[in-house]
Order: sequence, then C-alpha cells, then structure tokens
Amino acid sequence: MNKVFLGIVIAGLPLSVAGTLLHWSSTILFVVYCVTIIALASFMGRATESLAIVTGPRIGGLLNATFGNAVELIIAIFALKEGLIGVVLASLTGSVLGNLLLVAGLSFFIGGLKFKRQVFNVYDARHNSGLLIFAVIVAFVIPEIFSMSLNEERTMTFSIGISIILILLYLAALFFKLVTHRGVYQAGTKGASHTEEETPEWGKGKAIGVLALSTLAVAYVSENLVHTFEAVGDTFGWSELFIGVIIVAIVGNAAEHASAIIMAVKNKMDVAVEIAIGSTLQVAMFVAPVLVLVSLFFPVSMPLVFTIPELVTMVSAVLLMVVISNDGESNWFEGAILLAAYLIIGIGFYLL
Amino acid sequence: MNKVFLGIVIAGLPLSVAGTLLHWSSTILFVVYCVTIIALASFMGRATESLAIVTGPRIGGLLNATFGNAVELIIAIFALKEGLIGVVLASLTGSVLGNLLLVAGLSFFIGGLKFKRQVFNVYDARHNSGLLIFAVIVAFVIPEIFSMSLNEERTMTFSIGISIILILLYLAALFFKLVTHRGVYQAGTKGASHTEEETPEWGKGKAIGVLALSTLAVAYVSENLVHTFEAVGDTFGWSELFIGVIIVAIVGNAAEHASAIIMAVKNKMDVAVEIAIGSTLQVAMFVAPVLVLVSLFFPVSMPLVFTIPELVTMVSAVLLMVVISNDGESNWFEGAILLAAYLIIGIGFYLL
Amino acid sequence: MNKVFLGIVIAGLPLSVAGTLLHWSSTILFVVYCVTIIALASFMGRATESLAIVTGPRIGGLLNATFGNAVELIIAIFALKEGLIGVVLASLTGSVLGNLLLVAGLSFFIGGLKFKRQVFNVYDARHNSGLLIFAVIVAFVIPEIFSMSLNEERTMTFSIGISIILILLYLAALFFKLVTHRGVYQAGTKGASHTEEETPEWGKGKAIGVLALSTLAVAYVSENLVHTFEAVGDTFGWSELFIGVIIVAIVGNAAEHASAIIMAVKNKMDVAVEIAIGSTLQVAMFVAPVLVLVSLFFPVSMPLVFTIPELVTMVSAVLLMVVISNDGESNWFEGAILLAAYLIIGIGFYLL
Repeated sequence: MNKVFLGIVIAGLPLSVAGTLLHWSSTILFVVYCVTIIALASFMGRATESLAIVTGPRIGGLLNATFGNAVELIIAIFALKEGLIGVVLASLTGSVLGNLLLVAGLSFFIGGLKFKRQVFNVYDARHNSGLLIFAVIVAFVIPEIFSMSLNEERTMTFSIGISIILILLYLAALFFKLVTHRGVYQAGTKGASHTEEETPEWGKGKAIGVLALSTLAVAYVSENLVHTFEAVGDTFGWSELFIGVIIVAIVGNAAEHASAIIMAVKNKMDVAVEIAIGSTLQVAMFVAPVLVLVSLFFPVSMPLVFTIPELVTMVSAVLLMVVISNDGESNWFEGAILLAAYLIIGIGFYLL
Repeated sequence: MNKVFLGIVIAGLPLSVAGTLLHWSSTILFVVYCVTIIALASFMGRATESLAIVTGPRIGGLLNATFGNAVELIIAIFALKEGLIGVVLASLTGSVLGNLLLVAGLSFFIGGLKFKRQVFNVYDARHNSGLLIFAVIVAFVIPEIFSMSLNEERTMTFSIGISIILILLYLAALFFKLVTHRGVYQAGTKGASHTEEETPEWGKGKAIGVLALSTLAVAYVSENLVHTFEAVGDTFGWSELFIGVIIVAIVGNAAEHASAIIMAVKNKMDVAVEIAIGSTLQVAMFVAPVLVLVSLFFPVSMPLVFTIPELVTMVSAVLLMVVISNDGESNWFEGAILLAAYLIIGIGFYLL
Repeated sequence: MNKVFLGIVIAGLPLSVAGTLLHWSSTILFVVYCVTIIALASFMGRATESLAIVTGPRIGGLLNATFGNAVELIIAIFALKEGLIGVVLASLTGSVLGNLLLVAGLSFFIGGLKFKRQVFNVYDARHNSGLLIFAVIVAFVIPEIFSMSLNEERTMTFSIGISIILILLYLAALFFKLVTHRGVYQAGTKGASHTEEETPEWGKGKAIGVLALSTLAVAYVSENLVHTFEAVGDTFGWSELFIGVIIVAIVGNAAEHASAIIMAVKNKMDVAVEIAIGSTLQVAMFVAPVLVLVSLFFPVSMPLVFTIPELVTMVSAVLLMVVISNDGESNWFEGAILLAAYLIIGIGFYLL
C-alpha cells in the first residue's frame, strides 16, 4: 500500500505541474490533484504516526489532528483568497461531519469487526463532548440565529468576537490538557493503551523532513485544486455546497481517515478517537475562527454564519457523537450508525 | 379484567360488523371500533406475554414491540390507501411520543410507586439512545430541513434513500443484538431480571392462535375505523393532527401500554423499557420507512417530511428520554416528568 | 468585604429614597439602585448561608435558590405591573443563562483554581438534567413553536396550561427530594460534603430577621429600578432585551453568584451546583409560570412565549450544562467553557 502511494506521488506531482502549465481539462486536473493530495496526505500520516510513537499517544493525537487539518487550512486559505466563502464554510462543515461521522464511523466499524468491544478514555470523551456542544451549538448556531436580526457589519463584529473567544478557549484547552491536568484523567482506560513499545517507521529527523516536504507539496497542489471547483461543479452538476461538504472534506481529511483506522485496527482507540474528535474540535475551534480573522485581510470577509442545512447536520452529528461516545466504548454497530448518518447527509447535500 | 376484555371482544366484534353494514353514526362507530381494537390488543398483549415467557426477555421484548406495532402498521396502511398522509405522519409521531412519554412514563411512574428505585440494562439504554438520536434527529429532522430547498421529486428521492438506510440499519441492529453481541452487554442489570421461572398463561400453540386471530380482527376493524376520522373530527372539532397524534396513537399502542406497565409492576424494567423504547425505534426505523416505500404503490406517495410541531415534539421527547434513561435507573418522579411532557404536548396538539 | 457591603447598604438605601423623591437623573438612580440591591442581596446571601448551615446542605441549597430568586420575582412583578412583558421574559432568560453559565461557570472556574478535581452528587446532577430538558426544551420551546400557528387567545390558554403543569411538577420534585426519596441518592458524593461542623455567622433568629428586612428593602428599590430602564436604555443604546437578559439578571442573581462561589471555594460543590442549577430550575419551573398566572390579574397578560434568540441561547446553555455536569465532576476548564458561552451570548444580546 505504501508503495502504491509512493508511486502516486512520484507520478502525480509531475503530472500536477505539467497539467497545470499545459491547461489540461479541469476534470482531469481535479482528479489528478485530489489523488495526489490523498497520496501526499498518506505520507503526512505516516510521518505523523512515526512522530506520534516517539512523542506518546496524547501529543501524537494532537500532531495527527494538526497535520490532517494543515491540508484543510491550506486549501481553505486559497479558496478564501478567491472569495469562495461558501466553499470554505461548506468545507469546514464537511470537515466536522467527515471527522465525526466518517472517520470515527470507519474507525469504530473496522476496529469493531476485529474486536468485540473497544474502550477509550471516557474522561477525554466527556471533555470533548462539552467542547463539541460549545463549539458547534453555542459558537456556530448562535451567530446564525442572531444574524437574522443583525445587519452585515454587526454580524461581522459578532463573528470576530466569537472567533477570538474560540481561539482563546482552544488555547485554554491545550493548557488544561498539557499543563494543569496532564495525566490526571487516565483511570478510565483499561488495557487499551498499554505502553507496548512500538518502533517508529521513520526516525524523528526523517519524519519531520517528510512532513515538511509533503505539506509544501500539498500547498502547491491545493492552490491549483481550488481553481478547478467551478468547472468541475458545472460538469458533474455538483453544487458548491456538495463540493465543499463532501469532496473537499474527504480529500482534506484523508490523512485522518488513514491514521485513525490504522489505530482502530491496532485497538488503540484512544488515539483513533483523539484523531476524529480532536480534529473536529481543531477545525471548529481553531481553523474556522482563524479563517474568519484571516479573511479580514482579503477583499471579502467571511462571517461565522453557516447555512441552515450545514448547521442542522453539524448539530445532529454532534448530538449523535456525544451520546455514542459517552460510555467510553465502541463496537461495529456504533460505527454503522455514524456511517449511516454520513450517508444520509451526503445524499442530502448531493440533492440540494 | 381479562373477562372484561373478553366480554368487550365478544360484544364489540359483532357490533362493529353490524354497525358498519347498517351505517350507524360515525361517532358511535368510532367509539365501538376503538374499544374493540383496545380489547383485541389486550389479547394480543396476553398472547405475546405468554410467548415472551417461553422465548426469554429479549425476544419477548421484540415480540411485544412487533405486535404492538402491527396494529399501528395495519391502521396506517389503510389510512395511506385513503391518501390520508397527514394522519399517517401524525400517527407515527403519536406513536413515538406515546411510547417514549406515555408508555415509558406510566411504567416508570406506576412501577416507581411500588419500588423506590428500579434498574434496567444501562448498556441497552445507551445503545437505544444512539438509535433514537439517529432515527429522530438525523433521519427525521434532516429531510424536513432539506426539503425546504428541494422540489417535490427530490424530496421523495431523499425520503426513499433515507427509508432504505433506516431499514438496513434496523436489520443491522437486530443482527447486532441477536447474533454478534448477543449477551455481551448484560453486566448492567443486577437482580431485576432474575430468571424466576414463570408459567405462561397460554401454551405456545394457543398463544400463536390467539395472536393470529386477534391480528386479523384488528385489521378488519382498523379499515373501518379509518373511514370515521373525518366525520368524528368535524363533530368534536378535532384536527386531523390531533386524531393522528393522540387518538390513533393511544388506540394503536394500547397493547404496549398494558404489557409495559404489567412488566414494570413486576419490576421487570428491562422488558418494560425494551417495549417502550424498542417500540419507538421500530416505529421510527421500520414502520415509518416501510410506509414510505409502501406508499409508492398507492396513488399518493408519502415523503418522510413531518411538520415542524411534530418534529419539535419528537426531538424534545427523544432528548428527555436520552437524559432520563442514561443512568439505567428509574423512579416515580422520572415517570412524572415524562407524563407531564406528554400532557403538555397533548394540549398543544389539541389547540393546534 | 462584609463591611463594604454594610457601608453600601447604609449609604445606598437613604440615597435611593432621596434620589427617588428628588428625581435625580435616571442613570445615577439606576447605578444607585443596582449597587444597593447587590449589597442587600449579599446580606440575604449571608443570612441564607447561616440558615443553610443550621438546616443542612439540601434545604440550605433550596433556601439559597429561593431567596436569590425572591429578588428576581420581586423585580419581575413590578415590571409586569408596568406591562414590560419583553423585559420580564428577557430577565427570565437572563436568569436561566446567568445561573447555568455565569454562576456555575464562576463556581467551577474559581473552585477549580484551588482544587484540581471537584465532585458533586452525580444523582442530583442527572435528576436536574432531566428537569432542565423538561423545563427549557419541552415547556419553553414547544409553546413558541406551536404559537406560530395559534391565535393569541389559544397561545394564552396553552401558556396557562403549561404553567400549571410546571408548578405541579415543581411541587412533585420537592416532594420527591424531601419526602419519598430523601437521602436515597447519596452514594455518588465522596469526601466532598463531609459533615465538618461549621458555625453559622448568625443565629437562626437574627438570620431570619436580616433576611426579612433585606427582602423588604430589595422590593422597595426594585420597584423604583424598573422605572429607570427606559431612560437608561436610551442613554446607553441598550435594548430592552440586553437590559433584561444581562443587567437585570446579573443584579437579580448577585446573591447566588456570591454564595455559590463561596461554596465552591470551600469545595462544597454539592451546594454550589444546587444553587446554580436549582436556581435555574426554580426560575424556569416556578418563577416563570407564577409570573404567567400573576399577569392574568394585570392589564397585559404574559404568554410563555420567548423570542427565538432567547430560546436558542437557553437551549444551548441547557445542553452544555447537561453534558458538562453529567459526570458529577468539575474543574477550572469546564468553568471556562461555561464562561466563554456566557460571554458569546452577552455580546450577541448587546449587538441585537
């Protein structure tokens, strides 16, 4: 599998450069870009996994989430530069939905096919549940509802205020996890995360090098990818919303998909859940507000105002995950519920 | 009590036939039909209880739910045939509300008057919570929200897609409970469901015979019942919505009411909760999508699009039940909360 | 600190009387009234704390909640008399938000700075969660949704029905806690509420006397406070909504703020949580419906119909608190989440 990805990168990167310069058809370019990003993301995933083994499960989880969302952030900034605000909000939605339903769903399902019951840290799960409710239901739903009675300027002011609060609370959450309450809530996990010594695939130096190079390559390809959206949408009859919510999110989150499932199959559910939910939280509490603030330097500012279908699907996904993760256990059927929810939402956005 | 029901059936069935042929006033017929169905349902309930003792609590719970919903399904198909889509959706709503709030509420309340704290399997409760959130918040709310921006054809396509996913997930849930994870999650219940040997009222053969005959009789009476709705609504000033949500649901769920409360008084809360919540899930994940698919063969197709009041009350009921059942315990006051919620909702639909 | 409050009362009460008679500017009067009420509330808080020590944590918590809400109720009745229905509903909203997010948030945060993990009775927390969902999501959201299709008279009928049900369920909750299930659910708390003997600041007699006198004084000042709202709103550009949700709620809940935080710092989280959530429930299940019924005797009746922003913020706050309090533990970060939510909502109502 790794060789396949290596082959794709070796073929895909030159093709991306050549295709861009030679103005190939948008559809072909779109496919080349997407496949190349996914293959590159697999390198980011492997590099991150190596680093994760070196640095331990918690920092490892954070690293996984960060570099999964690096792809996301990079694509979004290029889309923002083009004024594609609808696509950016849709891709944030898609990232939340993709991480909560598709990544966690696949992890629970595939992990559950191998293990009857899988456990993860119930304290972390509840901590994350509080943040999910905060980020999606307080910080996303409220501006949407209030914006109905606010003019554009006040909506933007409100969005900036919320963005700053989100970022501060995100930093406070890191401070809580890594400093004041590091290791305090560990009792919940039994057996799952034994410190069975694993040898990383790559050394620290090589892993960082691969991570840096593949991130740069992703940035280059992403910039070009964004320019193909319009033409591809026209060709296939896909709306901006569907491209953002489903396509960009799947491509942008390929790294999480890969590494979360690998962890689930290894019965390291702590890390798998940290990737899926941690990544969601990073998108909602860090990537989204950073993009709002970054957009102030671009011609078109982006308020933190999602559409109603985006909000309703995110709220549903959050409630589903909060209830399902509340007991610190998973099995294949819980994965099936999450995947079924993703499928319904995917069909909905396709038809919209 | 059993003799009373026997008397009602012996008197009610001939009266139903005679009244139908002689075209009595709709109000009288409506009362005769309703009372007869409730009495017949009590036979179905007793037959099911006998079978439940023979087959064990889990299959027993499923049997209870299935034959309670048989009445429901039968009435709904006849209503669908008449094109009464509003009544069918309302009766589905009423069945969800009735099972979650009235059946569970009465079980918790009456059981709680006798026992200070009653326990039930907390794993099942959490499993069911995930499915409740999935069925009502994902599968019911999302099509309603999306249908606001979809034309009729796409709404119907979306409804069909969701219906198929619901049925598949329902079958997967059965497979999970009865095959892959049978008996895995039993630790939670202590003492409540001792296998104190009980002797069934009827033998297997007689129970099945009674079940079959009373189901047939219910079908006959239900068909006629549906034709009285309009005239009765006019007479009493009841809306289609109120008839569907409250009247049809109470008549259609009389079997569950009876057997769940009997189980609660016997401190068999596992079975009582399985009846109430299992029945809700069967309505939401099986009866509702089957009716959507069946409606494709009738002149008027039924999309899975409830009205806003129906959705809001179902979502409230689900959230209430998820929070209340989360600890695997009940008492009379939790029953009182559920009943109070049912009362408020009943008044609301009456006034609407 | 106590001497400061004593000074404020000694100075503030005569100033309030003098200022009212001499028709000082509304802004100055508004400040004088608010500060005086807060200082008076601190006396009510200390008197209540003394009584709480005498009567034990549970009755103590109820006493705290009752006399905190006495201020609220008094201000609301005077506002109702003036026909300021919008302000009253806003102040009820503000009280729910203030107790759930600001009072509990400050308690968790400040208590958490001193103690790494604080525990409270998980049974009470879950009992309260059920009631929060009932009161805010069933009893507040449903009339709002239904009122969209009801005329004014039916909306008022519905409001009266719900109010009676709320009050009856509130009384049933007291009966449950104090009579049928007194002391049944105590296992959950470990260590936190040791019966370390504390000596009350004041004896029973003096405490009751202080409580009675300060309540009377609060009533006098509140009546005058209500008359300054309009002028103050015009001066500062504050909407009726902002005054009600933020200002009145902070002034009206100062007693809870003070006593809950004091309890949290003493690691008596049972009492702190009982004050914050118990007070919310008393506002939602007792003060609000009583005000609806009282309004029938005033020229303008008040239906139980909040605005959409009020409802959405209350529902968010309830979901957040249910998820955060579900494990019976708190820490500074959970407090930070609640405070961040309050800040976002406060900015929202300010901009509205």
